[in-house]
Amino acid sequence: MIAQNPVFIPGPTNIPEVIRRACDLPTIDHRSPFFASVLHPAIDGVRKVLKQSNGETYMIPGTGTGGWETAIANTLSPGDGILAARNGMFSHKWIDMCKRFGLDVTQIDVTWGEGLPVARYEEILRADKDGKIKAVLATHNETATGVVSDIAGVRKALDAAGHGALLLVDGVSSIGSMPFEFDEWRVDVAVTGSQKGFMLPAGLAIIGFSDKAVAASKTARLPRTYFSIDDMRKGYAANGYPYTPPVGLFNGLKLSTEMLLAEGLDNVFARHARIAGGIRAAVNAWGMKLCAVRPELYSNTVTAIRTPEGFDAGRVVAHAHKDYAMAFGAGLGDVAGKVFRIGHLGMMTDSMALSGIATVEMVMADLGLDITLGSGVAAAQAVYRKGVTEKRMAAE
Amino acid sequence: MIAQNPVFIPGPTNIPEVIRRACDLPTIDHRSPFFASVLHPAIDGVRKVLKQSNGETYMIPGTGTGGWETAIANTLSPGDGILAARNGMFSHKWIDMCKRFGLDVTQIDVTWGEGLPVARYEEILRADKDGKIKAVLATHNETATGVVSDIAGVRKALDAAGHGALLLVDGVSSIGSMPFEFDEWRVDVAVTGSQKGFMLPAGLAIIGFSDKAVAASKTARLPRTYFSIDDMRKGYAANGYPYTPPVGLFNGLKLSTEMLLAEGLDNVFARHARIAGGIRAAVNAWGMKLCAVRPELYSNTVTAIRTPEGFDAGRVVAHAHKDYAMAFGAGLGDVAGKVFRIGHLGMMTDSMALSGIATVEMVMADLGLDITLGSGVAAAQAVYRKGVTEKRMAAE
Amino acid sequence: MIAQNPVFIPGPTNIPEVIRRACDLPTIDHRSPFFASVLHPAIDGVRKVLKQSNGETYMIPGTGTGGWETAIANTLSPGDGILAARNGMFSHKWIDMCKRFGLDVTQIDVTWGEGLPVARYEEILRADKDGKIKAVLATHNETATGVVSDIAGVRKALDAAGHGALLLVDGVSSIGSMPFEFDEWRVDVAVTGSQKGFMLPAGLAIIGFSDKAVAASKTARLPRTYFSIDDMRKGYAANGYPYTPPVGLFNGLKLSTEMLLAEGLDNVFARHARIAGGIRAAVNAWGMKLCAVRPELYSNTVTAIRTPEGFDAGRVVAHAHKDYAMAFGAGLGDVAGKVFRIGHLGMMTDSMALSGIATVEMVMADLGLDITLGSGVAAAQAVYRKGVTEKRMAAE
Amino acid sequence: MIAQNPVFIPGPTNIPEVIRRACDLPTIDHRSPFFASVLHPAIDGVRKVLKQSNGETYMIPGTGTGGWETAIANTLSPGDGILAARNGMFSHKWIDMCKRFGLDVTQIDVTWGEGLPVARYEEILRADKDGKIKAVLATHNETATGVVSDIAGVRKALDAAGHGALLLVDGVSSIGSMPFEFDEWRVDVAVTGSQKGFMLPAGLAIIGFSDKAVAASKTARLPRTYFSIDDMRKGYAANGYPYTPPVGLFNGLKLSTEMLLAEGLDNVFARHARIAGGIRAAVNAWGMKLCAVRPELYSNTVTAIRTPEGFDAGRVVAHAHKDYAMAFGAGLGDVAGKVFRIGHLGMMTDSMALSGIATVEMVMADLGLDITLGSGVAAAQAVYRKGVTEKRMAAE
Repeated sequence: MIAQNPVFIPGPTNIPEVIRRACDLPTIDHRSPFFASVLHPAIDGVRKVLKQSNGETYMIPGTGTGGWETAIANTLSPGDGILAARNGMFSHKWIDMCKRFGLDVTQIDVTWGEGLPVARYEEILRADKDGKIKAVLATHNETATGVVSDIAGVRKALDAAGHGALLLVDGVSSIGSMPFEFDEWRVDVAVTGSQKGFMLPAGLAIIGFSDKAVAASKTARLPRTYFSIDDMRKGYAANGYPYTPPVGLFNGLKLSTEMLLAEGLDNVFARHARIAGGIRAAVNAWGMKLCAVRPELYSNTVTAIRTPEGFDAGRVVAHAHKDYAMAFGAGLGDVAGKVFRIGHLGMMTDSMALSGIATVEMVMADLGLDITLGSGVAAAQAVYRKGVTEKRMAAE
Repeated sequence: MIAQNPVFIPGPTNIPEVIRRACDLPTIDHRSPFFASVLHPAIDGVRKVLKQSNGETYMIPGTGTGGWETAIANTLSPGDGILAARNGMFSHKWIDMCKRFGLDVTQIDVTWGEGLPVARYEEILRADKDGKIKAVLATHNETATGVVSDIAGVRKALDAAGHGALLLVDGVSSIGSMPFEFDEWRVDVAVTGSQKGFMLPAGLAIIGFSDKAVAASKTARLPRTYFSIDDMRKGYAANGYPYTPPVGLFNGLKLSTEMLLAEGLDNVFARHARIAGGIRAAVNAWGMKLCAVRPELYSNTVTAIRTPEGFDAGRVVAHAHKDYAMAFGAGLGDVAGKVFRIGHLGMMTDSMALSGIATVEMVMADLGLDITLGSGVAAAQAVYRKGVTEKRMAAE
Repeated sequence: MIAQNPVFIPGPTNIPEVIRRACDLPTIDHRSPFFASVLHPAIDGVRKVLKQSNGETYMIPGTGTGGWETAIANTLSPGDGILAARNGMFSHKWIDMCKRFGLDVTQIDVTWGEGLPVARYEEILRADKDGKIKAVLATHNETATGVVSDIAGVRKALDAAGHGALLLVDGVSSIGSMPFEFDEWRVDVAVTGSQKGFMLPAGLAIIGFSDKAVAASKTARLPRTYFSIDDMRKGYAANGYPYTPPVGLFNGLKLSTEMLLAEGLDNVFARHARIAGGIRAAVNAWGMKLCAVRPELYSNTVTAIRTPEGFDAGRVVAHAHKDYAMAFGAGLGDVAGKVFRIGHLGMMTDSMALSGIATVEMVMADLGLDITLGSGVAAAQAVYRKGVTEKRMAAE
Repeated sequence: MIAQNPVFIPGPTNIPEVIRRACDLPTIDHRSPFFASVLHPAIDGVRKVLKQSNGETYMIPGTGTGGWETAIANTLSPGDGILAARNGMFSHKWIDMCKRFGLDVTQIDVTWGEGLPVARYEEILRADKDGKIKAVLATHNETATGVVSDIAGVRKALDAAGHGALLLVDGVSSIGSMPFEFDEWRVDVAVTGSQKGFMLPAGLAIIGFSDKAVAASKTARLPRTYFSIDDMRKGYAANGYPYTPPVGLFNGLKLSTEMLLAEGLDNVFARHARIAGGIRAAVNAWGMKLCAVRPELYSNTVTAIRTPEGFDAGRVVAHAHKDYAMAFGAGLGDVAGKVFRIGHLGMMTDSMALSGIATVEMVMADLGLDITLGSGVAAAQAVYRKGVTEKRMAAE
């Protein structure tokens, strides 16, 4: 039996059939006008999703990790100061990259499950009188813990401190699924990847640079070629690319942004909020706790669920895979074995979410956890029915 | 939002991705050896699924209706007597076809929800002393009512009456999903289509003829060309086809039979039984009744559910389509407006079934029916968990 | 090595990628509004391609053979007189079908390579004083010989004889590729299939009925169910279908007609004429003869080429398949072994045609025929270059 | 009209349908066992194609440019000496990257059309008494000029000079299409991309490291994270990946290597040589000159053709695109406007090549160049027919 269950990993997401087809092109000459007809609308679409009206936007064959490297390599020089908090596996990894590139990281360690410590940011920035800190890193949504942080707050901390550091934001698991305000938050570099809110296969890093970040690139001395935005800029200006682009992924990205904008970003965000709300209602019905420690930190794209003390959360993921052919996310790093994760971003319907909730209920019951079958489903159904009612009333 | 929910109609079924790809071939010369390399294994595979070792097997571009026509046009002559029971929309339609072809039908009307009246068959056959009845029609699984009938019983009735009529069986919604015994039941013509248990798109009628049915075709005088098995036989013998075959569908059928046989027919049947069992448990939890009037008539491929008196069952289907983007089957003919149907044959997993059950629960609650959310899901989960436990124990 | 050479069989044709994708749909409920959104535009598109404004148009899962059966079963009664000429394998087969259905065929045997004998038609019709002939069959394009016949001439013959027989036209290998005038020629039934000019996989018979043919169906007594246009009409009127339709093929047909009409039927016909002209120029350069005996009979969709006396033409097809992985058509029936065929209808570019010509040149040289390499290609290139020049001038 | 002509650019190549499908997977959890079942066979397959038995092999989402960066960033430190020759656009670009990374490049400028100057390499290496040169760059096949260089010769130069520099080879447009001997030539880093000989879409850099190169990575101090082979090694060892891998491309690469090895590398190389031979025969028949200045430099994957003085070679590419919907390669850098290029690597048949030759003949004639139509085709046909004869004789 070939299972055709949806996946519940926090990326890559389930891919709509039309997007798969947009990506799966026959070979088309990337130096022909076709490429331009795809590239520029894709950029425009991404900018609308980012709500970015200033600066420049680039797509580079790679992943979010490549996006992080694009962000720092184009804006910073060896020895530059960085301020960053470590509140999950992905903030941890970006910090690690900065260190490898010879940057001087002021690292704030935070309990995993917490958000970015905005007040601490402000303190440290105020204390940085001679401006050694050139950039502040901020992970908008920690995929490892299901925690969304307050980027507007980080911006306020910078402003309150009167500090001119660049604001570099990892929006890998938020952009396209939760509100993101490039202009309003005065983000300097926003990083995401194709395989999350854009519902594409992995393979494209997507990076927005503010005017200020572009200006910084003129003097930044970290070495770069593959991830150089100067080369990208020249290529794009000539309707081309500095090397061979994955034309199909660009074509898919163009369609993806069209789909997101046609649905309406607010509707997309509301859908993610509703689906996440149903999943959190299920967790509550099971009597379990989230990894995220406070409601304002709850992510609408991924939910990390703590299993009882002494129970290896990895067993949920393994059993679901083996006996129900369904994929969930395991805990990573500090919370390995303590949480399992349900990804619910990108292409997802209420009915798909219910199949995931119903399946994980069976899995937990099979493993001896004290779960009433149907309880989480019922709680989520109540949320989803309400969503349908609201949609209908809105349409009337 | 492009929904990617599974369908719960009783055919066409959800199609496994690998089968879709096997069907979607580029143009290949159907007079090249490739066609033979697909045709003969597809036939062999179908015969294994039918459990047919005698006679001949044909695939003709068309649907189950074309299969019915193939069955009668190749075996009967104008004025021949037919015995048939009408217990649903599909038995009704086959009878209607016989009348149009000038056959003399002895029709037994049965309440929809009942199975084929085996005892009445025997009575009538015993009474047919001079053998005017040349064929008995038997709809194995009435897709309109979710009723499976006792084909072995029909065979016994023929034998008990010492009657030599051909046994023509409509196995459209049973073959490949529920036990079917061409040889053991001494079926003379078995009819199915590609879009049910074989998990393919609509487009192929699949018909098995016993040696006795083939012999009957030598003298049968109903006109036929498109559906002629004589032309088919000559074509196949030369590794060809009497006209242009849909090569992709044949290729898909070859793969489909490989997949069914690799899973093991008994396992395929057990999976259908388990999934159907979960759905019936849900119906019971909802306090609702099946259209099928007795447990031994319960179909493992489609469940028809009676809604309360005065409630238009069609509203369930319409609301599910409109507000949850999920397809269920409406009632047809005598039970239109009285039942809705959940199709659960072909490519289906427990988790997919649960998303259907969970969705229809919300639909019924939305429409004011007295349904406890989660109740049907919980009942089905209990069945599906048991299935997993049994599989694991079997593997140990 | 997986070859990706185009095919040069006279159907199924090379399928544009976008059409393959339109056909390869996931399962969609055929009782949902989606089906109506595909069915009616497809019908409208087909009618524009047929240039049919009166009567009705149907698509039935099947092939051209099924279309022939639809034509006769819905308009004729046992014993009705038919007038038909046999000038190739496909006219031969339609005549054979008529005989099997108990029709009384007046058959004119014509040398294969000749067109329909319009004058003989007129003579016979004039002689049929008491109107025993109910229908005249006319194969517009004999795929076996590459001969296009004069349907307007057949209409004139009927008119000149003052005869009221129905005009049933096989346009399988002409419709969508060569001018076809349903209204102007007062065609009563036009038959084609999905896998020729419509560039789809095999699987749909497409049939246009004039008002007069529809009227005839009211009294026609040949038995029919699968091919019944009465059932089709009722289904279509309810946005449905009398049985399970191949939704993907309908979706593909909708797109196909959109593409043909967007290109412009006159441009489509001009493209076929240009490509065919290049192939005939190549044949001439090789010093070979066509099967079609006069220029006005030359088909623009398939070219049948006579090989020298004593040379088995089948060797060309076999060698091309085996050593160059390219498919051409073999001779059939009376011209088996005497001709090979190049199909050049549907999705075909000049460059694709040149690869076929270049390949068959090598094949013939390999087999010892007296062919100057490059000679046919050069002759065709001259035609194709002129086409480009003409297109450019037209655009200026 | 949607053209389905093959492309004749020197990458991305025409992609076999089966490989496109292997790449176009639904979302599969990259932390599930499926990924391991794809990753390791893909690596093994690549190593067989490279003929690499020592060291390590990595695939990184990116392009050949990313592969160059992987090569240097993992083996070198700021200020390290590099020896390189600039004989085309791609050697030029790699040199430029080295300079950006702060490496100290000894650059030999060579006429474009020439190969790598092996004797000069030896001279310079001999003179580098204190071993400032840490790596020698060698572009195996210059895609811009259609020149293949003598890597075995570069190895000999290193050995003759008794120099221990690493040998870094760009095999982007040679590997998988022309003989490449990682072990025998003692290559230290070999770089290629998915979109050339491997017949995949762009999106994967493929890099082989010798034991010596791996050892060098332990002390190399250029910064790296995205392209770090240390992170890759750890990921692979755990059946995982340091970030989200493009699972579909890995699956395609696995299949691609299976296909290349099933055809047999020697047969793959012979096919490329035969097809290239035909194209060069055509160029000769046209009375034109290659960019490559001597026969031993002729590439079997791309042919760059000089147009007459005063004629802008770009017009060939533009006209072919606009009027014949066929893609050829333009000249780049020093030879822009002076050459056009025919790519003939990856998935290519003789018949496909002939369609390209025939088309470019028409293009050149249209543009007023003195070309005899059919002349190039005839010359190529002679080569391709001979290939068929040889294959047949080999099989007997």
